[in-house]
Formats: sequence, C-alpha cells, structure tokens
Amino acid sequence: MLKYTIGKGNYKNWIIGEDEFSLSEQGKGESVFCLGNGYMGIRSAFEEPYPFQTRGTFVSGCFDRLPDETVELPNAADVCEIRLILDGEYFSMTQGEVSGYQRCLNLYTGELTRSLDWRSPGGKRYRLVFKRAVSHADVHACGMQVEICARDHDAKVQVTSGINGRMTNSGAQHFSDGSKRVLDRQFLYLDQRTVQSGIIFYHCCGSRVVGAKGEVRDFAMERRRILETMDFKAEKGKTVRYEKLAVLYTGRELAEQGEQALQLLARHVRRLVTEGYDALQEKNAACFRSFWEQRDIRIRGENDRIPLALRFAQYHLLAMIPPDSSSSIAAKGLTGEGYKGHVFWDTEVYILPYYLFTAPEKAAQLLEYRINRMGQARENAKKKGYRGLLFPWESTGTGEEETPLFAGMDILTGKAAHVWAGIKEHHITADIAYALWMYRSAAGGRDIEDEEGNLLIVGAALFWMSRSVYVEEKDRYEIRDIIGPDEYTEHVDNNAYSNYMARDTVQKALRLLRGGGGRFVRKAEAYYGETGIAERMETYARKLYLPLPVENPPGILPQNDGFLQKKTLDVAKYRSSAGKQTILKDYSRRQVDQMQVLKQPDVVMLLILLPELFDTGIKWKNWNYYEPKTIHDSSLSRAIYSVAASDCKESREAYECFLHAMDIDMGPNPHSSDQGIHAAAMGGIWLAVVRGFVGLRVLEDCLCIEPCLPEQIQEICFSFIYRGKNIALQLTKEKLMLSSTGDEETPVRIQGRDYRFTHGLEIAM
Amino acid sequence: MLKYTIGKGNYKNWIIGEDEFSLSEQGKGESVFCLGNGYMGIRSAFEEPYPFQTRGTFVSGCFDRLPDETVELPNAADVCEIRLILDGEYFSMTQGEVSGYQRCLNLYTGELTRSLDWRSPGGKRYRLVFKRAVSHADVHACGMQVEICARDHDAKVQVTSGINGRMTNSGAQHFSDGSKRVLDRQFLYLDQRTVQSGIIFYHCCGSRVVGAKGEVRDFAMERRRILETMDFKAEKGKTVRYEKLAVLYTGRELAEQGEQALQLLARHVRRLVTEGYDALQEKNAACFRSFWEQRDIRIRGENDRIPLALRFAQYHLLAMIPPDSSSSIAAKGLTGEGYKGHVFWDTEVYILPYYLFTAPEKAAQLLEYRINRMGQARENAKKKGYRGLLFPWESTGTGEEETPLFAGMDILTGKAAHVWAGIKEHHITADIAYALWMYRSAAGGRDIEDEEGNLLIVGAALFWMSRSVYVEEKDRYEIRDIIGPDEYTEHVDNNAYSNYMARDTVQKALRLLRGGGGRFVRKAEAYYGETGIAERMETYARKLYLPLPVENPPGILPQNDGFLQKKTLDVAKYRSSAGKQTILKDYSRRQVDQMQVLKQPDVVMLLILLPELFDTGIKWKNWNYYEPKTIHDSSLSRAIYSVAASDCKESREAYECFLHAMDIDMGPNPHSSDQGIHAAAMGGIWLAVVRGFVGLRVLEDCLCIEPCLPEQIQEICFSFIYRGKNIALQLTKEKLMLSSTGDEETPVRIQGRDYRFTHGLEIAM
Repeated sequence: MLKYTIGKGNYKNWIIGEDEFSLSEQGKGESVFCLGNGYMGIRSAFEEPYPFQTRGTFVSGCFDRLPDETVELPNAADVCEIRLILDGEYFSMTQGEVSGYQRCLNLYTGELTRSLDWRSPGGKRYRLVFKRAVSHADVHACGMQVEICARDHDAKVQVTSGINGRMTNSGAQHFSDGSKRVLDRQFLYLDQRTVQSGIIFYHCCGSRVVGAKGEVRDFAMERRRILETMDFKAEKGKTVRYEKLAVLYTGRELAEQGEQALQLLARHVRRLVTEGYDALQEKNAACFRSFWEQRDIRIRGENDRIPLALRFAQYHLLAMIPPDSSSSIAAKGLTGEGYKGHVFWDTEVYILPYYLFTAPEKAAQLLEYRINRMGQARENAKKKGYRGLLFPWESTGTGEEETPLFAGMDILTGKAAHVWAGIKEHHITADIAYALWMYRSAAGGRDIEDEEGNLLIVGAALFWMSRSVYVEEKDRYEIRDIIGPDEYTEHVDNNAYSNYMARDTVQKALRLLRGGGGRFVRKAEAYYGETGIAERMETYARKLYLPLPVENPPGILPQNDGFLQKKTLDVAKYRSSAGKQTILKDYSRRQVDQMQVLKQPDVVMLLILLPELFDTGIKWKNWNYYEPKTIHDSSLSRAIYSVAASDCKESREAYECFLHAMDIDMGPNPHSSDQGIHAAAMGGIWLAVVRGFVGLRVLEDCLCIEPCLPEQIQEICFSFIYRGKNIALQLTKEKLMLSSTGDEETPVRIQGRDYRFTHGLEIAM
Repeated sequence: MLKYTIGKGNYKNWIIGEDEFSLSEQGKGESVFCLGNGYMGIRSAFEEPYPFQTRGTFVSGCFDRLPDETVELPNAADVCEIRLILDGEYFSMTQGEVSGYQRCLNLYTGELTRSLDWRSPGGKRYRLVFKRAVSHADVHACGMQVEICARDHDAKVQVTSGINGRMTNSGAQHFSDGSKRVLDRQFLYLDQRTVQSGIIFYHCCGSRVVGAKGEVRDFAMERRRILETMDFKAEKGKTVRYEKLAVLYTGRELAEQGEQALQLLARHVRRLVTEGYDALQEKNAACFRSFWEQRDIRIRGENDRIPLALRFAQYHLLAMIPPDSSSSIAAKGLTGEGYKGHVFWDTEVYILPYYLFTAPEKAAQLLEYRINRMGQARENAKKKGYRGLLFPWESTGTGEEETPLFAGMDILTGKAAHVWAGIKEHHITADIAYALWMYRSAAGGRDIEDEEGNLLIVGAALFWMSRSVYVEEKDRYEIRDIIGPDEYTEHVDNNAYSNYMARDTVQKALRLLRGGGGRFVRKAEAYYGETGIAERMETYARKLYLPLPVENPPGILPQNDGFLQKKTLDVAKYRSSAGKQTILKDYSRRQVDQMQVLKQPDVVMLLILLPELFDTGIKWKNWNYYEPKTIHDSSLSRAIYSVAASDCKESREAYECFLHAMDIDMGPNPHSSDQGIHAAAMGGIWLAVVRGFVGLRVLEDCLCIEPCLPEQIQEICFSFIYRGKNIALQLTKEKLMLSSTGDEETPVRIQGRDYRFTHGLEIAM
C-alpha cells in the first residue's frame, strides 16, 4: 500500500513510498517507483530476487519482433540484482525480521531509496540502506548503492552482482546469446543482439567498496550471465558502502564497434566508478532541481495528495520522453511490458499538451516522429484501400500498423478474438492532425517541418474523404463501420467523435490549401497523386453528416447512429471496480456492444477537443447523460470527464473525477500498475488541473484561460511556455495573475474577454 | 542438508529427505528428489515459487538447437507451480512460521512428499501436506496433491495453478508461443513447438477438490501461460485435498493432430482426474514395488547409508532410462540442464553394465541407439579424415558430434577456449565396441542386430587403424595427439587406455571377421569400402605399440608418453574440494597439463575394463601411484578406484573410495547436484558394490565372481539376470550362494575356479 505522507519538511509532498513489504504486490512498486530518463527505464524491482518480481529494463525505440508475435520492446539484461550474504546468512526480507522498512521515491531528487533494519535468522542485526538512480545527466548511466552497518559484530560481507542476460518478456527471449568479458580486469561486460532487429545492447558495470577492509573480488561467467563477487569486512557499528555503476548503450547510437565499443564502455564505467554513486546522483538531482524550479505546480488546497500527484505525473512524464524523434511515448512509457511499448493516440491527445506548455521542443519532437512516418501512413492507407494518410492505431519504430489482428484466444473455444482497433479505429489520424495544428497555434506560426506538416494535415483530410461514403438519397457523406474512442462499441456508423474530428481535419487542410497558394496545392496534389483536392474538400466539409443533439433525450448528441436506441444497464457494480473490465465476466463483447455502456468518454471527448461546438448547456446535458453510463474501464476516462466538467464550470464533479483520475497508478489498487504505469493517465492528471481547473489552452491566435477552481483548492501557481515566453500563472479564488519574461505582448482570452499583456496582468475572478 | 534416517520401520533406508528449508540450497533437492520415468523428468522444485529455484521438465530425446548454440533438451512448460492463498494470506515458507517441515523422497513408492505446519503472518495455523508423483505406470502422466487443514478456523482457500510456458533454459527460449485452451470447460491445455526441431509439446491438466465446500473455478489466460483459480472453503480441523493431474505428450509419439490430439489429452486427463491422485500414485507405487521385489540389493553392514545409496542409485537409474532406442541416457539423466542432455561414454561404461544384469533388453536398447547412428559415425570419421566409425564424444538425437568447439570465453581476454574433447577424445568408439561385446557375452551369443553389431565392431577397429600412425624406425603403430579419460591431460601420444582399448577393439573385429567367414568379410569390406581388412588388422594388432610397465618407478604403466617425466604436485588441497576443479583457480589448463595431476582414473580405468592384462601386483602398484595424483574432479573417478581396489582385493581402500563415490549426489555438498544428478555416478555406486565388492562380471563364456567384501559389510543379497535366467546371489564373509530359475546349467568362475550349476551353488569363502 503506497504512502503519501512520508516526505517531511522540504520534502513534504515530494515523496511517494511504502512502509510495508508485500510479496504479492511487488508489481505496483516496480512500476510506480520506476526510474527512467527517456532513453531507458528500469523497473524498481528489489535488489535481491523474490517470487512475483517482474524485473524490466527497456530502451526507448529499440523494438524486436519474434516469429508470429507482436513487435515489442525487449526486456534488456538486468544489472540491478544484488545478493548480499552477511556473515554467511543470505539477506532476504522474507527471512529473519525486518523492521523500520521504508521505500521512497523522492520525486524532487529522482532517487529511490530503501532502508530497513534486519535481524538475521541467526539473530545478527544490520542496518541496510539501498539507493538507486537512473541518471538524467548521463542517460546511459545508472547507479546503485548499498549501505551496510553490522550493529553488534564485525561482519563478513559477500556481495554478488553482475549483468544478467537471462531476462525475457514473460518467457519470450528477444536476444541471442552474446559475449561476456571482464574488461581491464575490473569491469563486467555483456552484449547481446536482438534476434530480428539486430540491435546490439552493450552493458558494462563496475563496483567499488567504501569504508571496508580486505576486499577480494572474484568473477564468474555463466550462461547469459556474468557475475562479480566482492568479499569484504564490515566493522561493528561502521557503515560500509557497496556501489555499483553501470552503463547501457545500444548499437543504434554507438558509432564504435567491437573492441572500440568495449573501450568506450570501460572508460565510461571507470569514470563513474571513480566518481562514485553519490556523484552520479548529485548530477542527477541537479537535473531534477532545475526541472522542478521551472516546472513545479504549486497547489494550495485541502488535499496534499494533489500536489504530490502532479509531481508524480510530471516525474513520469519526464522519465518517458524519448531523447529524439526516432521514437515516441509508449502507452506504459518505459515502465513495463504492457502494450509492448507501442504508441497510441494517447501520446498526441493526452500527453502532448503537457510538453506543449513545458518543453515545446519535445512536443515538436513527438510530432516529428509522426511526420517522419508519413510514408508508412500512406502505405497503410493504400493497403487498406484508402487515400491520403492513415496513421497506425499502434505504432512502433517503423510506423507500420502494429495492432495485433487477434487478441488472446477465447478461453473456451480456442478461437482467437479479432482485434478491430487496427482495422477500424481511425480517429488517431484526426487526432494527430489536431495535435499538429495545436502545436502550431501554441508556437505562434508554422515553424518546423513547415511543408511536411501541411502535407500531413492534407493527407489526413484526404484519408477521411476516402473513408466516407456518399449517401445519395440524403446527399451527404457518412462514415460507416468505425470504432470511436469508446471501444466497448464497435462497427458503428457516424460516430460523432470521428465525424466531427474528420470535418475539423478537412477544414484545417482546406485552410492550408487556400492559404498556401497554388504552389502548395500543386505540391500536395503531386504528393498524393490527386487533383482538385481543395474543391472536393469544400464539398465534403459541407456535406459530411454531423450528428446533432436530439430532442429525446433532449440535447443529447448520439455517440453513433442508433446508440440512443440501445438498451441501458445499471453499471454501478462495474464502476466500483473500474479499470478491471469486470463487465466482460458477465457479458460477452457482443452483448456489451448492444448496450449503452461506455468504457471511456466518446462524445464528451469530442466536447473538450472542440469546445466551441456546443454551448455549455448542451455539454453539461451530455456529460450527465454519458458519464453515468461509463464504467471508466480505461485509464483515459476520468481525467477527460474532469476536464469536461471544468469546461462546464461544474467544479464539484470536476474535482470528484480528478480524485479518481489521480489514483489510477498512485491509488490503492495493488495491481493496476503491474504491467507499467499509465502514461496517458500522467498526462491526464496534468490536463485535469491545467486544462481543467485553470482552463488553460491555446486558441489559434491567443492563449485562453477559463478557470474553474474547485472549492477544495485555494491556489494554483506554475510557469509555462507560450510562444517562446516563460509565463508565470497564479490562480486563486479571487484573482488570476500572469507575468511574462520578454518584451513581447501576449494575447490572452480570459473568461471570454481578450487582453494583451507584456510583463504582467491581474484579473479579478 | 539431506537426511538419511527419516525412513522408519518398513521404510528404513528407503527414504532420502530433509527437515530444513534452505532458500540457497534448493538446487540440491530439486535434482536429488527429481521425479522421472524415463520418458520425462521433473525437477522437484517446490510448488510455490522461490528465488533460486530452477524449475525443469525434460522429455527424453526431444532436442532443439537455438541459433549459434549447442543443441539441448528444452525446458518444457511447468505444471508443478501451485500458489495457495489461505484466508487471504499467501503461503510461502519464507513468511510466517514453519514447523515440522519434512520433505521426503520415498524410493520404495516413488512419491515425493512435503509436510509442514504453517503459522501464517496473521497468526492462523495450518497443516499442509504436498505430494507429487511422475507415473511409471503411465509415462505421460504426473500428479500432485495438497492436503490443507485449517487448525483453528474455517478457512477460505484459493489455489492458483496452471501450465506455465514461460520456462527457459537459463534464459534461452526453445519454444515459440503456441496455443492455449480450456477443454470441455474444465481442463487447461497449452501447446508449444520447439523453434528449430519443430517438436510440439502438448500439455493438459485438470484438478479436483475433495472434502471442501463451495468450489468456484475460474480461468485466466496470459502470455505463454494458462491458469486456473479454485476457491473453496476448508472447515476447521477437516482436511481438504486439492489434486492436480497433468499429462505431457509430444508430437513425436502422437499420431493424432489438432483437435484429435486435444480430445485424446482431454480424455486422458478426465480419466486421471476422475480416478484421482491416490489412484495414480497407487499404480505408480505398484510399478516400484514390483521393481524392488526383483531388484533390491540387500546389504547388511555397519553403515545404513549404503543400502540407501544403492536404492537411491537404482531409483535414478530407473528414472533415466528412455522408453526406446530413439534416445539414450544423458549425463544428468532428465534431472537438469547440465551437459544439455548430451550422451557421453558414461552410458556405455558406467551405466550399461547395470542394465545388462537387471534389464538386458534396456542394455540392448542403449546399444541399438548407437547401432542406429552408425551412419553418422561413418560421416563423422570421414569428415575428420579417418575411416570406419567414429562415434561422437557428445551425442544427441542425430548421432552427430555435438561437443561444443569452444567453451565459455576466457573471462579476461574474451577469447573462447577450445574444447578438444569432440576433436581428440576418441576412446568412446572403443568403449562402445567393448560394451557391445560385453552385452553379447552376457546374453550368451550374438543376438539382436547381429550383423550390424558386427559391422559396428569392425568399423570401430577400422577407425583405430586410421587413427594410428606407422613409425618406421620403430616398426610400430602409435596413436598420437589424443585425449584419454583423464581430461586434465590433452594432446598426448600413446595414451595407454586408448592404445590398449584400440587393440582390444581390433582383436574383437578380427575374431568376427575370422569367425564370420568370407561372406561377412565381403560384407564388411563393401560396407566400409576397403579391402584386405582382416590382414591389415592382424598386422596392426601385432604392431600397435602398447606401453608396458616401466622399471622406474617399478611396475608403473605410463599414462602416456612422457607422463612419468612430468613434475608432480601435492594435490591434497584440491582433493579436499574434489569435484569443484579448484586447481584451475591456481593453475591454467596448460600448466595442469604439464604436471602428473589427474582429474580421474586413466590407466586404472583400463585395469578394470581389461582386468586380465596385468597381474594384481602391477595393478596395485599402479593404483597406489595414480590414485594419490588424482583430484577426483570428475564424478567418474571414485567408483572406478573403488572397483580397481576390489580387483586387487584391497577392501579397505575399495570401501573408502566407495564411501566417497556414494556421496557425489547424496552427500552433504549443497551444490554438487544443482545442474542435475550425475547419471554415471549412479552407475558407479552399483558398479562399486556389484562389480567391486561382489566381483561380478561376465566373461565370454561364463559368469565370473571374485568377491572382496569389506570388513564393514556382512552380507550382500540380490538377484540378477544372466542369459535369460534370474539368478539370486547371497554373499557373506563365509560363503557365496547362487540359485537360479530354469533348468539350464550356468557356468561360473568363482575365485579362479570354474563351476557349473543348475539350481543352486554354495561356495565357502
């Protein structure tokens, strides 16, 4: 069970931790406390092995595909396992007696620590402190430290640790057996190559002992594993430290090969070992310090979990952003095997807004990832009989569609269930175009990848046109047999979200074509091999069917054709175990499909992406219609309902939903995060506060702020970036204050009124 | 630490067990208590998972080779893992308090049991008994039973178990992900196929609960794993039983495919589940009963470990013998990953004599395995530039040479060390011919595979001729650059063992050629594409150099040219840690090669295989010269020195060596058996007693018995098979009694005098 109040003094609301060890709930801590720097992520499994551990090390963008399996991020060799033998007794928290146990992830410093007193089965007492860090200053490096204090005797200590290349992804082995070495008679080295993609992973580590006597170092080489054993003596009452420093490179970024690569690794490890663990962590903490100085969101309110949750979310958002555009953010970041490291719409819709306001170059990088894969999106569209660009529902390194065609087999019939998302869930193509447009609005123009970005939006529009059918008797276009964001409903016609987002895409493309002049039109027509695209877009945008609020029930926008005629179900039972899809234990997918039961917002999702479409009255009606029908079985659900309620100025519901949203990973459910944290939920926490409570978003020509501060929150302060300027925002019940660096004016619309300010602005609420 | 005195009453000296649980010494029990029936072997890892477990399930002869790796027996899916949650508390022996722990392998019944009292962390008390059996009555079946008694409350019990296809060989995955099903809404099914050899492994299991109420069964399918959860209630003080029955087939023996195979498995499991665990074990125990009725060796003496050791050895010898000649016995049987399931000379020289006297059809089967691979032996000889047959040093399914060319890389240089055994250790070809001849002597003629067996011996002889060089100045043949049984000496000339065994092979071939008449000579010449083979063999046998005892040191037969001139070393230090090759921590292999240091007997091995070569005086001199220079780093060492001492009538040394030999797996070294038990050592235990103390062996035309009963042993009684007759033997210090079934005379030479008896014979000692 996670503890939230461990942090005291300066660290108040900066520490998430636990004070009890549970064998069966290790997955939670492994994911929630996961350390990562965007390049690599290491699940926080304990140093010493336990059953039910899922050790994991993942490198961003390094995918591999086993025969007949889905491409995934392979689980790299483990360097974190450390076995301690203290005076001949093997240390395990399941043996002897453990007291004073505490494990803490310090979000301010990025360090994971575990401290405990151990009374061995033989009755000897030890104080042990384990520390671990994955460096943000040196993305290839990580370090561990073990402090050992023998309380009442001189102790012989034996530490065994190394590089373990036996790791698998739940039994699937992505690496062929590579080579192992001791470099410079001191450092352990192991490399292995991914079976299909041929990426070499290079691991090297070294260790040192501080404060002990009579060290003896020994090496052992086993199958797929190289180990070092250090024997030394810990004098009674003195603290000795064992430190292990490790680096991980892959052949993707190393120009060096063979012996040269080995020398580079050995030099790197030598430097780390010489400087020691504390130096590594000090540099890491400095990165975090500077990050928090700029990015911390200070919230004053009655619930201390909220500032902690925002820090927790930002910690993971920082850990998951890849170093460059060769990869994007996976649904679980680099924290676990879940979703196999694949990239979904989550990135553009839930996560990208965060970077947009905090590190716009990272938002640009995420979009570049898509722009660089337009070729595959064209192929994908073509292969499926469409035109323009169809981005894959699940994307990896190549940009090809990687959604598995079949899910797990039906347990009884043995027949594999079709997964339709890769074939029918197409809104991601609109979502990406939407995110690109938003990025440009925030950046104040069409900077990077100018023309390619334009082509992307045009291609997305062309896709939607080809995806629609013209219904002659109604003289309109319809989008049939599609899946919207609510995946409990499949194969529907005229999903409101998809239709509106399709029109939005086409309208944006049209503006680019009209605004870009003949040259761009010719370019786009040549690129996509079509003619008369602007004219056709105009017709399409005019004639695309857009479902409107109905009269009965009044004001409700149908999620899709026929949705409102389906029967309803009391979902209270399933909502109480949200996230676990328990409805599928009572009903088949086909049956769920036939009811007004939602996994996650669909119409309401639309209402927050295109908030100008409908007035608040309609929005609130739809919120109240759809929310009670939503089981929230997706981690993408609660935060959106929170934002939508804020948009309606319904702060009570917004707050309520937010409390649920922030607990998706950080809450008490002991298994919700076993497969990794929910990356989109991290974005969701930020969205609910910044997009929701503060009401901050970008319009095309200005910032927009529509606060809806819940009663329980007194004040929100933070800085964000808008058009290159750093803007500080302070929101209380009484006022909104903005201050900006630089000498340029910033246009802002606050509660519907337009302002411009250069250095500061104060508005009474 | 193993316990030997757990068996009481009827089970005295029938039970090997332990009364303490040790996390770090699990490997020992997993191997020593391993259950197997020749078709499959299952390591006895605990039901609930612990760190440092090595779960393993191996099927005889089902090999697979991963790219760039050595072919090996893949570790099949695990069915033995059972997780218990008792009133919400996870059962693990590392949590709460365990008392009355006892684990026993009952050698008489073939059942493994574990019983213990558990006081949960929450203070609740349970009595738990785990039972497990791999059936000898139904080789595809195994069963498990868990008895649960909640001592002081009604308990909710949850059992989770299934089929886990995530197993690897130390991280190497041999199976592609297969399919999973629930058959008949009741039985779990999982199949997977080996990656290279394409063998499908079919697993199916079912469960039942006896004596409980309110069972609820649920299923879960995960990656490479299918699980069942059973919830039920155990009333206070009542014992409830959870039983799991499982079958394992492979595509090699199943004619059925697809749905038909599934139906067959489901029917099989249904039958097992209906009958229950006790029925499975009763049938299994009946097989064991009938086995022991015939095969138990009753030893009266001062050390109770000895009868236990012989039962332990026979238990494992029974568990390792494959069902047919498509495979042979691996160096670790089916008890672990060690030596990768490969077959060595161990089988013919250490193990085959046991079957010869107890199950001659199995001895024949082991020889058929070689006879069926003569084609590969011819290819192997040809490839290496020799003629005739060269059997592989390490053999698997195909009969090709599978000895890895390189051992683990040198830890410092990263350069792989050459393994020369596959290239230079050739005596196995003589050993196989020797074993075939011995089989025929025991069977009283040239039965099965008559001509092919003859061709094997001729082919082996032709190999040795081509393996030798003619040295003109000495007018003799020499065998150069070879490795004898003592692998601490490589690349030597005229290894005594090899030269004498080569001559023995050629002499036997010559007898076959002379005795077989022109027809067989023509056949053999055609088969091997050579002419004049008998004449050449005659010359060769006459002119092959055979090292003779030297004058200084007097009577010592040099292990090879120059051996006696090498410097000596005090090996006491290394002998005290025999089996661990600690000498290689002080000296390089090259340095060891330059000293008179033996890993295992070489000249002395020769003396027991060809005991007529030298008189007892010479033998005993050689024993006393070589034994003190032997570190016994091989499990093949002690038993041979014991037999050789018995041959010299030196019962004190024979007994001393035997005590060491019987402890190779069963002794106190906690890690000697981690990778599996030592199959040859099991044969060695039997050899030391039957071939050594009793002095039983076959001569060409008769039995031969030369007892050498150690002071500490009063009586040895057992039955054996000779020429189709069951012969009972009773040996005491005073007399030897033989009695036989059937009406045929049996010729026997006892202490040098020839006798013939029909029903009985009694000789005073």
